Amino acid sequence: MSQIDYFTEECSVEAVNTRMGETINPRLREVMASLITHLHGFVKEVELTQEEWEFAIDFLTRTGQTCDDKRQEFILLSDTLGVSMLVDAIQHRRPEGATENTVFGPFHVDGAPELEMGANISLDGKGEQCLYEGRVLDLDGNPIEGVRIDVWSDNSEGFYDVQQPDEQPVWNNRGVFITGPDGRYWFTGIKPVSYPIPDDGPVGQMLRHLGRHPWRPAHMHFLLDHPDYERIVTHTFVAGDTYLTSDTVFGVKESLILDYAANPDVKTGWQAHFDFVMNPHEQ
Amino acid sequence: MSQIDYFTEECSVEAVNTRMGETINPRLREVMASLITHLHGFVKEVELTQEEWEFAIDFLTRTGQTCDDKRQEFILLSDTLGVSMLVDAIQHRRPEGATENTVFGPFHVDGAPELEMGANISLDGKGEQCLYEGRVLDLDGNPIEGVRIDVWSDNSEGFYDVQQPDEQPVWNNRGVFITGPDGRYWFTGIKPVSYPIPDDGPVGQMLRHLGRHPWRPAHMHFLLDHPDYERIVTHTFVAGDTYLTSDTVFGVKESLILDYAANPDVKTGWQAHFDFVMNPHEQ
Repeated sequence: MSQIDYFTEECSVEAVNTRMGETINPRLREVMASLITHLHGFVKEVELTQEEWEFAIDFLTRTGQTCDDKRQEFILLSDTLGVSMLVDAIQHRRPEGATENTVFGPFHVDGAPELEMGANISLDGKGEQCLYEGRVLDLDGNPIEGVRIDVWSDNSEGFYDVQQPDEQPVWNNRGVFITGPDGRYWFTGIKPVSYPIPDDGPVGQMLRHLGRHPWRPAHMHFLLDHPDYERIVTHTFVAGDTYLTSDTVFGVKESLILDYAANPDVKTGWQAHFDFVMNPHEQ
Repeated sequence: MSQIDYFTEECSVEAVNTRMGETINPRLREVMASLITHLHGFVKEVELTQEEWEFAIDFLTRTGQTCDDKRQEFILLSDTLGVSMLVDAIQHRRPEGATENTVFGPFHVDGAPELEMGANISLDGKGEQCLYEGRVLDLDGNPIEGVRIDVWSDNSEGFYDVQQPDEQPVWNNRGVFITGPDGRYWFTGIKPVSYPIPDDGPVGQMLRHLGRHPWRPAHMHFLLDHPDYERIVTHTFVAGDTYLTSDTVFGVKESLILDYAANPDVKTGWQAHFDFVMNPHEQ
Protein backbone atom coordinates (compact mmCIF):
# COMPACT_ATOMS: atom_id res chain seq x y z
CA MET A 1 0.00 0.00 0.00
CA SER A 2 1.44 3.39 -0.90
CA GLN A 3 1.87 6.01 1.77
CA ILE A 4 -1.09 8.19 2.74
CA ASP A 5 0.13 11.79 2.53
CA TYR A 6 -2.27 13.41 4.99
CA PHE A 7 -3.94 12.01 8.09
CA THR A 8 -7.75 11.97 8.24
CA GLU A 9 -10.17 10.38 10.68
CA GLU A 10 -11.25 7.91 7.99
CA CYS A 11 -7.79 6.74 6.93
CA SER A 12 -6.04 7.13 10.28
CA VAL A 13 -4.86 3.51 10.49
CA GLU A 14 -3.46 3.47 6.96
CA ALA A 15 -1.81 6.87 7.46
CA VAL A 16 0.19 5.51 10.40
CA ASN A 17 0.86 2.02 9.09
CA THR A 18 2.00 2.98 5.60
CA ARG A 19 4.57 5.27 7.23
CA MET A 20 6.64 2.28 8.40
CA GLY A 21 9.89 1.74 6.51
CA GLU A 22 10.18 -0.96 3.89
CA THR A 23 13.12 -2.79 5.42
CA ILE A 24 12.05 -3.07 9.05
CA ASN A 25 11.71 -6.32 11.00
CA PRO A 26 8.65 -8.12 9.54
CA ARG A 27 7.36 -9.26 12.94
CA LEU A 28 7.61 -5.69 14.27
CA ARG A 29 5.62 -4.55 11.24
CA GLU A 30 2.94 -7.19 11.88
CA VAL A 31 2.66 -6.40 15.60
CA MET A 32 2.59 -2.62 15.14
CA ALA A 33 0.07 -2.73 12.29
CA SER A 34 -2.28 -4.79 14.44
CA LEU A 35 -1.69 -2.55 17.47
CA ILE A 36 -2.51 0.60 15.50
CA THR A 37 -5.62 -1.00 13.99
CA HIS A 38 -6.98 -1.99 17.39
CA LEU A 39 -5.85 1.17 19.20
CA HIS A 40 -7.49 3.46 16.63
CA GLY A 41 -10.49 1.14 16.54
CA PHE A 42 -10.92 1.63 20.28
CA VAL A 43 -10.61 5.44 20.07
CA LYS A 44 -13.15 5.56 17.24
CA GLU A 45 -15.60 3.15 18.85
CA VAL A 46 -15.89 5.14 22.08
CA GLU A 47 -15.18 8.54 20.47
CA LEU A 48 -12.61 9.23 23.16
CA THR A 49 -12.79 12.82 24.43
CA GLN A 50 -9.86 15.16 24.98
CA GLU A 51 -10.38 14.95 28.76
CA GLU A 52 -10.42 11.13 28.68
CA TRP A 53 -7.24 11.17 26.58
CA GLU A 54 -5.59 13.49 29.11
CA PHE A 55 -6.65 11.17 31.93
CA ALA A 56 -5.19 8.18 30.07
CA ILE A 57 -1.86 9.98 29.49
CA ASP A 58 -1.70 10.86 33.19
CA PHE A 59 -2.72 7.33 34.27
CA LEU A 60 -0.03 5.69 32.13
CA THR A 61 2.58 8.20 33.34
CA ARG A 62 1.72 7.55 36.99
CA THR A 63 1.77 3.79 36.35
CA GLY A 64 5.30 4.04 34.94
CA GLN A 65 6.44 6.25 37.79
CA THR A 66 5.08 3.82 40.41
CA CYS A 67 7.54 1.17 39.16
CA ASP A 68 10.81 0.59 40.97
CA ASP A 69 13.07 -2.34 41.92
CA LYS A 70 10.34 -3.96 43.99
CA ARG A 71 7.15 -2.84 42.31
CA GLN A 72 6.07 -3.38 38.69
CA GLU A 73 2.80 -1.50 38.27
CA PHE A 74 2.55 -2.16 34.50
CA ILE A 75 2.64 -5.92 35.17
CA LEU A 76 -0.14 -5.41 37.73
CA LEU A 77 -2.07 -3.49 35.08
CA SER A 78 -1.54 -6.27 32.54
CA ASP A 79 -2.54 -8.87 35.15
CA THR A 80 -5.73 -7.09 36.22
CA LEU A 81 -6.83 -6.50 32.61
CA GLY A 82 -6.45 -10.20 31.81
CA VAL A 83 -3.60 -9.59 29.36
CA SER A 84 -0.97 -11.62 31.24
CA MET A 85 -3.24 -14.67 31.42
CA LEU A 86 -4.18 -14.26 27.76
CA VAL A 87 -0.54 -14.24 26.61
CA ASP A 88 0.12 -17.29 28.79
CA ALA A 89 -2.93 -19.11 27.43
CA ILE A 90 -1.98 -18.43 23.79
CA GLN A 91 1.61 -19.54 24.31
CA HIS A 92 0.74 -22.68 26.30
CA ARG A 93 -2.07 -24.44 24.53
CA ARG A 94 -1.77 -28.04 25.74
CA PRO A 95 -3.40 -31.35 24.94
CA GLU A 96 -6.34 -32.55 27.03
CA GLY A 97 -5.09 -33.99 30.30
CA ALA A 98 -1.86 -31.99 30.58
CA THR A 99 -1.63 -29.67 33.60
CA GLU A 100 -2.62 -26.11 32.73
CA ASN A 101 -0.40 -23.08 33.30
CA THR A 102 -1.30 -19.96 35.18
CA VAL A 103 0.45 -16.65 35.93
CA PHE A 104 4.05 -16.79 37.13
CA GLY A 105 3.59 -13.89 39.54
CA PRO A 106 6.23 -11.51 40.84
CA PHE A 107 7.32 -13.46 43.94
CA HIS A 108 9.42 -16.32 42.57
CA VAL A 109 13.07 -16.24 43.65
CA ASP A 110 15.81 -18.21 41.92
CA GLY A 111 18.10 -20.32 44.09
CA ALA A 112 15.74 -21.78 46.69
CA PRO A 113 17.39 -24.70 48.50
CA GLU A 114 17.00 -28.22 47.12
CA LEU A 115 15.44 -30.23 49.94
CA GLU A 116 14.90 -33.89 50.70
CA MET A 117 11.49 -35.19 49.82
CA GLY A 118 9.19 -34.71 52.80
CA ALA A 119 10.91 -31.60 54.17
CA ASN A 120 8.96 -28.80 55.83
CA ILE A 121 9.27 -25.50 53.97
CA SER A 122 7.39 -23.45 56.57
CA LEU A 123 10.21 -22.01 58.63
CA ASP A 124 8.31 -19.47 60.70
CA GLY A 125 6.10 -22.04 62.43
CA LYS A 126 2.98 -20.06 61.61
CA GLY A 127 -0.13 -21.23 59.81
CA GLU A 128 -2.01 -24.49 59.35
CA GLN A 129 0.32 -27.32 58.37
CA CYS A 130 -0.43 -29.09 55.10
CA LEU A 131 1.08 -32.15 53.42
CA TYR A 132 1.41 -31.64 49.65
CA GLU A 133 1.77 -34.88 47.72
CA GLY A 134 1.18 -36.49 44.37
CA ARG A 135 2.99 -37.66 41.25
CA VAL A 136 4.43 -36.18 38.08
CA LEU A 137 3.21 -38.17 35.07
CA ASP A 138 3.44 -38.09 31.32
CA LEU A 139 0.35 -38.01 29.10
CA ASP A 140 0.19 -41.84 29.21
CA GLY A 141 0.21 -41.92 33.00
CA ASN A 142 3.83 -43.04 33.40
CA PRO A 143 5.82 -41.47 36.23
CA ILE A 144 8.58 -39.02 35.26
CA GLU A 145 11.88 -39.20 37.11
CA GLY A 146 14.15 -36.21 37.64
CA VAL A 147 11.53 -33.47 37.53
CA ARG A 148 12.68 -30.35 39.35
CA ILE A 149 9.73 -29.01 41.36
CA ASP A 150 10.19 -25.46 42.68
CA VAL A 151 7.43 -24.46 45.14
CA TRP A 152 6.60 -21.20 46.92
CA SER A 153 3.70 -19.68 48.82
CA ASP A 154 2.82 -16.80 51.09
CA ASN A 155 2.91 -17.26 54.85
CA SER A 156 -0.17 -17.41 57.04
CA GLU A 157 -0.40 -13.61 57.04
CA GLY A 158 -0.53 -13.40 53.25
CA PHE A 159 3.05 -12.24 52.63
CA TYR A 160 5.93 -13.86 50.76
CA ASP A 161 9.32 -13.88 52.49
CA VAL A 162 10.72 -11.32 50.05
CA GLN A 163 7.99 -8.89 51.05
CA GLN A 164 9.05 -9.12 54.71
CA PRO A 165 12.82 -9.61 54.70
CA ASP A 166 13.09 -8.39 58.30
CA GLU A 167 10.25 -10.49 59.66
CA GLN A 168 10.42 -13.86 57.91
CA PRO A 169 13.28 -16.38 57.79
CA VAL A 170 15.12 -16.53 54.46
CA TRP A 171 13.52 -19.09 52.11
CA ASN A 172 10.39 -19.29 54.27
CA ASN A 173 7.77 -21.32 52.39
CA ARG A 174 10.10 -22.10 49.48
CA GLY A 175 11.92 -25.20 48.36
CA VAL A 176 13.02 -27.37 45.43
CA PHE A 177 12.35 -31.12 45.20
CA ILE A 178 13.50 -33.66 42.59
CA THR A 179 11.30 -36.64 41.75
CA GLY A 180 12.63 -40.20 41.90
CA PRO A 181 11.75 -43.14 39.60
CA ASP A 182 8.18 -43.31 40.97
CA GLY A 183 7.54 -39.68 40.03
CA ARG A 184 6.32 -38.97 43.54
CA TYR A 185 6.69 -35.74 45.47
CA TRP A 186 5.72 -34.84 49.02
CA PHE A 187 6.56 -31.99 51.33
CA THR A 188 5.02 -30.08 54.19
CA GLY A 189 4.02 -26.46 53.89
CA ILE A 190 1.06 -24.44 55.10
CA LYS A 191 -2.45 -24.10 53.80
CA PRO A 192 -1.95 -20.77 51.99
CA VAL A 193 -4.18 -17.74 52.51
CA SER A 194 -5.73 -15.27 50.10
CA TYR A 195 -4.11 -11.83 49.82
CA PRO A 196 -4.60 -8.55 47.96
CA ILE A 197 -2.22 -7.38 45.24
CA PRO A 198 -0.60 -4.00 46.04
CA ASP A 199 -3.51 -1.58 45.61
CA ASP A 200 -2.11 1.73 46.81
CA GLY A 201 -1.16 2.84 43.26
CA PRO A 202 -2.90 3.65 39.97
CA VAL A 203 -4.00 0.02 39.43
CA GLY A 204 -5.69 -0.05 42.84
CA GLN A 205 -7.51 3.18 41.96
CA MET A 206 -8.61 1.63 38.68
CA LEU A 207 -9.94 -1.48 40.42
CA ARG A 208 -11.98 0.63 42.86
CA HIS A 209 -13.52 2.67 40.01
CA LEU A 210 -14.34 -0.60 38.21
CA GLY A 211 -16.09 -1.98 41.29
CA ARG A 212 -13.50 -4.76 41.63
CA HIS A 213 -11.50 -5.98 44.64
CA PRO A 214 -7.71 -6.57 44.64
CA TRP A 215 -7.75 -10.10 46.12
CA ARG A 216 -6.18 -13.31 44.90
CA PRO A 217 -7.54 -16.63 46.18
CA ALA A 218 -5.12 -18.74 48.28
CA HIS A 219 -2.68 -20.75 46.18
CA MET A 220 0.59 -22.72 46.22
CA HIS A 221 3.00 -21.99 43.35
CA PHE A 222 4.61 -24.80 41.38
CA LEU A 223 7.31 -24.56 38.70
CA LEU A 224 8.15 -27.92 37.07
CA ASP A 225 11.17 -28.42 34.83
CA HIS A 226 12.47 -31.48 33.00
CA PRO A 227 14.65 -31.52 29.87
CA ASP A 228 12.21 -33.64 27.86
CA TYR A 229 8.98 -31.84 28.79
CA GLU A 230 7.41 -28.43 28.47
CA ARG A 231 7.89 -26.31 31.61
CA ILE A 232 4.82 -26.00 33.82
CA VAL A 233 4.24 -22.70 35.63
CA THR A 234 1.13 -23.04 37.74
CA HIS A 235 -0.61 -22.82 41.10
CA THR A 236 -2.96 -25.12 42.92
CA PHE A 237 -5.91 -23.36 44.54
CA VAL A 238 -7.82 -24.17 47.72
CA ALA A 239 -11.41 -25.30 47.03
CA GLY A 240 -13.92 -23.14 48.84
CA ASP A 241 -11.80 -19.96 48.82
CA THR A 242 -13.94 -16.80 48.76
CA TYR A 243 -12.10 -15.36 45.77
CA LEU A 244 -11.92 -18.38 43.42
CA THR A 245 -14.39 -16.91 40.94
CA SER A 246 -13.12 -13.34 41.26
CA ASP A 247 -9.31 -13.64 41.27
CA THR A 248 -8.22 -10.09 40.47
CA VAL A 249 -5.58 -11.39 38.01
CA PHE A 250 -7.86 -14.04 36.43
CA GLY A 251 -5.40 -16.83 37.32
CA VAL A 252 -7.84 -19.55 38.40
CA LYS A 253 -8.53 -22.54 36.16
CA GLU A 254 -11.06 -25.10 37.28
CA SER A 255 -8.57 -27.97 36.82
CA LEU A 256 -6.22 -26.36 39.36
CA ILE A 257 -8.69 -26.18 42.27
CA LEU A 258 -8.27 -28.97 44.78
CA ASP A 259 -9.85 -30.10 48.03
CA TYR A 260 -7.70 -29.72 51.11
CA ALA A 261 -8.63 -32.71 53.30
CA ALA A 262 -7.94 -33.19 56.99
CA ASN A 263 -4.70 -35.14 57.38
CA PRO A 264 -5.42 -38.12 59.69
CA ASP A 265 -1.73 -38.34 60.66
CA VAL A 266 -1.45 -34.80 62.04
CA LYS A 267 -3.53 -33.32 64.85
CA THR A 268 -4.54 -30.06 63.15
CA GLY A 269 -3.17 -30.53 59.65
CA TRP A 270 -4.35 -30.77 56.06
CA GLN A 271 -3.34 -32.71 53.01
CA ALA A 272 -3.51 -31.65 49.38
CA HIS A 273 -3.19 -34.23 46.63
CA PHE A 274 -2.37 -33.20 43.06
CA ASP A 275 -0.86 -35.10 40.14
CA PHE A 276 0.95 -33.06 37.50
CA VAL A 277 0.89 -34.16 33.86
CA MET A 278 3.70 -32.91 31.64
CA ASN A 279 3.50 -32.40 27.91
CA PRO A 280 6.59 -33.50 25.94
CA HIS A 281 8.50 -30.92 23.92
CA GLU A 282 7.54 -30.90 20.28
CA GLN A 283 9.70 -33.44 18.43
CA MET B 1 -24.32 -10.89 31.00
CA SER B 2 -23.57 -12.97 34.06
CA GLN B 3 -20.03 -13.23 35.33
CA ILE B 4 -17.68 -15.76 33.76
CA ASP B 5 -16.20 -17.76 36.66
CA TYR B 6 -12.94 -18.89 35.06
CA PHE B 7 -10.78 -17.18 32.45
CA THR B 8 -10.12 -19.02 29.17
CA GLU B 9 -8.51 -17.90 25.93
CA GLU B 10 -11.88 -18.10 24.19
CA CYS B 11 -13.88 -16.05 26.70
CA SER B 12 -11.10 -13.73 27.87
CA VAL B 13 -12.94 -10.50 26.99
CA GLU B 14 -16.15 -11.56 28.72
CA ALA B 15 -14.22 -12.83 31.76
CA VAL B 16 -12.72 -9.38 32.31
CA ASN B 17 -15.70 -7.26 31.31
CA THR B 18 -18.34 -9.12 33.31
CA ARG B 19 -16.16 -8.59 36.39
CA MET B 20 -17.00 -4.86 36.46
CA GLY B 21 -19.35 -3.80 39.24
CA GLU B 22 -22.98 -3.07 38.54
CA THR B 23 -23.05 0.46 39.87
CA ILE B 24 -19.95 1.95 38.25
CA ASN B 25 -19.91 5.03 36.02
CA PRO B 26 -21.62 4.01 32.74
CA ARG B 27 -19.12 5.86 30.54
CA LEU B 28 -16.22 4.16 32.34
CA ARG B 29 -17.92 0.82 31.70
CA GLU B 30 -18.31 1.63 28.00
CA VAL B 31 -14.72 2.81 27.56
CA MET B 32 -13.18 -0.09 29.49
CA ALA B 33 -15.29 -2.73 27.75
CA SER B 34 -14.17 -1.41 24.37
CA LEU B 35 -10.56 -1.13 25.53
CA ILE B 36 -10.50 -4.75 26.74
CA THR B 37 -12.15 -5.96 23.51
CA HIS B 38 -9.56 -4.25 21.34
CA LEU B 39 -6.58 -4.98 23.61
CA HIS B 40 -7.35 -8.71 23.77
CA GLY B 41 -8.20 -8.66 20.06
CA PHE B 42 -4.70 -7.33 19.36
CA VAL B 43 -2.98 -9.93 21.59
CA LYS B 44 -4.96 -12.73 19.93
CA GLU B 45 -4.46 -11.47 16.38
CA VAL B 46 -0.66 -11.38 16.63
CA GLU B 47 -0.41 -14.22 19.20
CA LEU B 48 1.85 -12.04 21.30
CA THR B 49 4.77 -13.98 22.76
CA GLN B 50 6.00 -13.86 26.35
CA GLU B 51 9.18 -12.07 25.20
CA GLU B 52 7.19 -9.47 23.28
CA TRP B 53 4.96 -8.93 26.30
CA GLU B 54 8.04 -8.43 28.49
CA PHE B 55 9.41 -5.92 25.98
CA ALA B 56 6.10 -4.04 26.00
CA ILE B 57 6.05 -3.90 29.82
CA ASP B 58 9.60 -2.56 29.83
CA PHE B 59 8.89 -0.07 27.02
CA LEU B 60 5.84 1.37 28.81
CA THR B 61 7.77 1.55 32.09
CA ARG B 62 10.65 3.41 30.47
CA THR B 63 8.20 5.73 28.72
CA GLY B 64 6.62 6.65 32.06
CA GLN B 65 9.98 7.12 33.70
CA THR B 66 11.19 9.43 30.92
CA CYS B 67 8.42 11.90 31.85
CA ASP B 68 9.19 14.89 34.06
CA ASP B 69 8.20 18.56 34.36
CA LYS B 70 9.53 19.34 30.91
CA ARG B 71 9.12 16.10 29.01
CA GLN B 72 5.93 14.10 28.39
CA GLU B 73 7.00 10.92 26.62
CA PHE B 74 3.50 9.36 26.67
CA ILE B 75 2.15 12.36 24.73
CA LEU B 76 5.00 11.89 22.24
CA LEU B 77 4.00 8.23 21.98
CA SER B 78 0.35 9.14 21.43
CA ASP B 79 1.39 11.77 18.86
CA THR B 80 3.67 9.45 16.89
CA LEU B 81 1.06 6.65 16.81
CA GLY B 82 -1.56 9.03 15.39
CA VAL B 83 -3.74 8.82 18.51
CA SER B 84 -3.55 12.51 19.42
CA MET B 85 -4.62 13.57 15.92
CA LEU B 86 -7.39 10.97 15.91
CA VAL B 87 -8.87 12.22 19.20
CA ASP B 88 -8.67 15.78 17.88
CA ALA B 89 -10.31 14.80 14.58
CA ILE B 90 -13.18 12.99 16.29
CA GLN B 91 -13.83 15.85 18.71
CA HIS B 92 -13.62 18.61 16.08
CA ARG B 93 -15.60 17.50 13.08
CA ARG B 94 -16.45 20.76 11.32
CA PRO B 95 -18.57 21.80 8.39
CA GLU B 96 -16.96 22.20 4.98
CA GLY B 97 -15.10 25.49 4.78
CA ALA B 98 -14.34 25.87 8.50
CA THR B 99 -10.64 25.91 9.39
CA GLU B 100 -9.41 22.50 10.49
CA ASN B 101 -7.70 21.81 13.81
CA THR B 102 -4.39 20.13 14.32
CA VAL B 103 -2.32 19.10 17.37
CA PHE B 104 -1.90 21.63 20.16
CA GLY B 105 1.68 20.57 20.86
CA PRO B 106 3.61 20.94 24.10
CA PHE B 107 5.10 24.42 23.54
CA HIS B 108 2.18 26.79 24.11
CA VAL B 109 2.61 29.15 27.07
CA ASP B 110 -0.27 31.02 28.68
CA GLY B 111 0.17 34.74 29.19
CA ALA B 112 1.97 35.88 26.06
CA PRO B 113 1.77 39.69 25.68
CA GLU B 114 -1.13 41.24 23.77
CA LEU B 115 0.46 43.27 20.98
CA GLU B 116 -0.68 45.95 18.55
CA MET B 117 -1.60 44.65 15.16
CA GLY B 118 1.52 44.65 12.97
CA ALA B 119 4.03 44.04 15.77
CA ASN B 120 7.15 41.96 15.27
CA ILE B 121 7.19 38.89 17.51
CA SER B 122 10.71 37.80 16.55
CA LEU B 123 12.80 39.29 19.34
CA ASP B 124 16.13 37.59 18.67
CA GLY B 125 16.60 39.12 15.22
CA LYS B 126 17.35 35.72 13.71
CA GLY B 127 15.68 34.04 10.77
CA GLU B 128 13.91 35.13 7.61
CA GLN B 129 11.29 37.79 8.30
CA CYS B 130 7.72 36.99 7.30
CA LEU B 131 4.53 39.05 7.29
CA TYR B 132 1.55 36.95 8.43
CA GLU B 133 -1.79 38.43 7.40
CA GLY B 134 -5.37 37.54 6.61
CA ARG B 135 -8.87 37.69 8.07
CA VAL B 136 -11.01 35.80 10.53
CA LEU B 137 -14.40 35.05 8.97
CA ASP B 138 -17.58 33.19 9.79
CA LEU B 139 -18.97 30.45 7.55
CA ASP B 140 -20.79 33.07 5.47
CA GLY B 141 -17.61 35.05 4.85
CA ASN B 142 -18.39 37.87 7.28
CA PRO B 143 -15.47 39.26 9.34
CA ILE B 144 -15.46 38.45 13.06
CA GLU B 145 -14.46 41.21 15.48
CA GLY B 146 -12.84 40.55 18.83
CA VAL B 147 -11.16 37.25 18.03
CA ARG B 148 -8.18 36.58 20.28
CA ILE B 149 -5.36 35.14 18.14
CA ASP B 150 -2.51 33.58 20.10
CA VAL B 151 0.49 32.73 17.89
CA TRP B 152 3.78 30.95 18.54
CA SER B 153 6.60 29.36 16.55
CA ASP B 154 10.12 28.05 16.91
CA ASN B 155 13.07 30.33 16.15
CA SER B 156 15.30 29.98 13.13
CA GLU B 157 17.26 27.21 14.84
CA GLY B 158 14.17 25.06 15.46
CA PHE B 159 13.72 25.77 19.18
CA TYR B 160 10.89 27.42 21.08
CA ASP B 161 11.87 30.05 23.67
CA VAL B 162 10.89 27.74 26.54
CA GLN B 163 13.38 25.15 25.30
CA GLN B 164 16.22 27.71 25.49
CA PRO B 165 15.38 29.98 28.44
CA ASP B 166 19.01 31.10 28.72
CA GLU B 167 19.52 31.78 25.04
CA GLN B 168 16.29 33.34 23.75
CA PRO B 169 14.49 36.50 24.91
CA VAL B 170 11.33 35.86 26.94
CA TRP B 171 8.27 35.63 24.64
CA ASN B 172 10.44 35.27 21.56
CA ASN B 173 8.20 34.39 18.60
CA ARG B 174 5.00 34.65 20.66
CA GLY B 175 2.18 37.16 20.80
CA VAL B 176 -1.56 37.76 21.10
CA PHE B 177 -3.57 39.90 18.67
CA ILE B 178 -7.25 40.95 18.78
CA THR B 179 -9.15 41.46 15.54
CA GLY B 180 -11.02 44.69 14.85
CA PRO B 181 -14.33 45.14 12.96
CA ASP B 182 -12.73 44.15 9.65
CA GLY B 183 -11.60 40.78 11.06
CA ARG B 184 -8.08 41.47 9.83
CA TYR B 185 -4.85 40.39 11.47
CA TRP B 186 -1.25 41.06 10.55
CA PHE B 187 2.06 40.68 12.34
CA THR B 188 5.68 40.01 11.57
CA GLY B 189 7.42 36.81 12.60
CA ILE B 190 9.90 34.52 10.92
CA LYS B 191 9.48 31.82 8.32
CA PRO B 192 9.55 28.86 10.71
CA VAL B 193 11.87 25.88 10.27
CA SER B 194 11.29 22.14 10.57
CA TYR B 195 12.58 20.42 13.73
CA PRO B 196 12.75 16.94 15.27
CA ILE B 197 10.68 15.97 18.30
CA PRO B 198 12.84 14.85 21.25
CA ASP B 199 14.13 11.48 20.08
CA ASP B 200 16.61 10.47 22.77
CA GLY B 201 14.03 8.39 24.68
CA PRO B 202 11.88 5.28 24.13
CA VAL B 203 9.76 6.99 21.44
CA GLY B 204 12.86 7.89 19.45
CA GLN B 205 14.02 4.27 19.67
CA MET B 206 10.60 3.13 18.46
CA LEU B 207 10.69 5.51 15.50
CA ARG B 208 14.14 4.22 14.45
CA HIS B 209 12.96 0.60 14.60
CA LEU B 210 9.90 1.55 12.53
CA GLY B 211 12.07 3.18 9.88
CA ARG B 212 10.59 6.60 10.63
CA HIS B 213 12.24 9.98 11.24
CA PRO B 214 11.38 12.32 14.14
CA TRP B 215 10.85 15.50 12.10
CA ARG B 216 7.95 17.92 11.98
CA PRO B 217 7.55 20.20 8.96
CA ALA B 218 7.90 23.94 9.64
CA HIS B 219 4.73 25.54 11.02
CA MET B 220 3.30 28.59 12.77
CA HIS B 221 0.88 27.84 15.65
CA PHE B 222 -2.47 29.64 15.92
CA LEU B 223 -5.01 29.48 18.76
CA LEU B 224 -8.21 31.42 18.02
CA ASP B 225 -10.81 32.18 20.69
CA HIS B 226 -14.12 34.04 20.52
CA PRO B 227 -17.10 33.61 22.86
CA ASP B 228 -19.53 32.81 20.04
CA TYR B 229 -17.35 30.39 18.07
CA GLU B 230 -15.65 27.06 18.50
CA ARG B 231 -11.99 27.40 19.48
CA ILE B 232 -9.51 26.75 16.67
CA VAL B 233 -6.21 25.07 17.57
CA THR B 234 -4.15 24.80 14.42
CA HIS B 235 -0.94 25.47 12.54
CA THR B 236 -0.21 26.78 9.08
CA PHE B 237 2.48 24.87 7.21
CA VAL B 238 5.04 26.07 4.67
CA ALA B 239 4.42 24.69 1.18
CA GLY B 240 7.42 22.81 -0.15
CA ASP B 241 8.72 21.67 3.25
CA THR B 242 10.58 18.35 3.05
CA TYR B 243 8.49 16.78 5.81
CA LEU B 244 4.95 17.79 4.80
CA THR B 245 3.95 14.25 3.84
CA SER B 246 5.84 12.58 6.68
CA ASP B 247 5.15 14.74 9.74
CA THR B 248 6.11 12.42 12.59
CA VAL B 249 2.99 13.41 14.56
CA PHE B 250 0.63 13.31 11.53
CA GLY B 251 -0.40 16.95 12.08
CA VAL B 252 -0.51 18.14 8.46
CA LYS B 253 -3.82 18.74 6.72
CA GLU B 254 -3.80 19.79 3.13
CA SER B 255 -6.02 22.83 3.84
CA LEU B 256 -3.40 24.20 6.24
CA ILE B 257 -0.47 24.28 3.78
CA LEU B 258 0.20 27.69 2.33
CA ASP B 259 2.59 29.31 -0.08
CA TYR B 260 5.06 31.69 1.42
CA ALA B 261 5.55 34.41 -1.20
CA ALA B 262 8.32 36.96 -1.45
CA ASN B 263 7.18 40.20 0.20
CA PRO B 264 7.71 43.04 -2.28
CA ASP B 265 7.90 45.57 0.58
CA VAL B 266 10.83 43.95 2.39
CA LYS B 267 14.25 43.25 0.96
CA THR B 268 14.64 39.64 2.02
CA GLY B 269 11.23 38.87 3.51
CA TRP B 270 8.26 36.64 2.96
CA GLN B 271 4.53 36.95 3.32
CA ALA B 272 2.03 34.30 4.28
CA HIS B 273 -1.67 34.87 3.69
CA PHE B 274 -4.29 32.76 5.46
CA ASP B 275 -7.97 33.38 6.26
CA PHE B 276 -9.41 31.55 9.25
CA VAL B 277 -13.05 30.46 9.20
CA MET B 278 -14.70 29.88 12.59
CA ASN B 279 -17.59 27.53 13.26
CA PRO B 280 -20.28 28.89 15.62
CA HIS B 281 -20.94 27.04 18.88
CA GLU B 282 -23.86 24.66 18.62
CA GLN B 283 -27.06 26.55 19.43
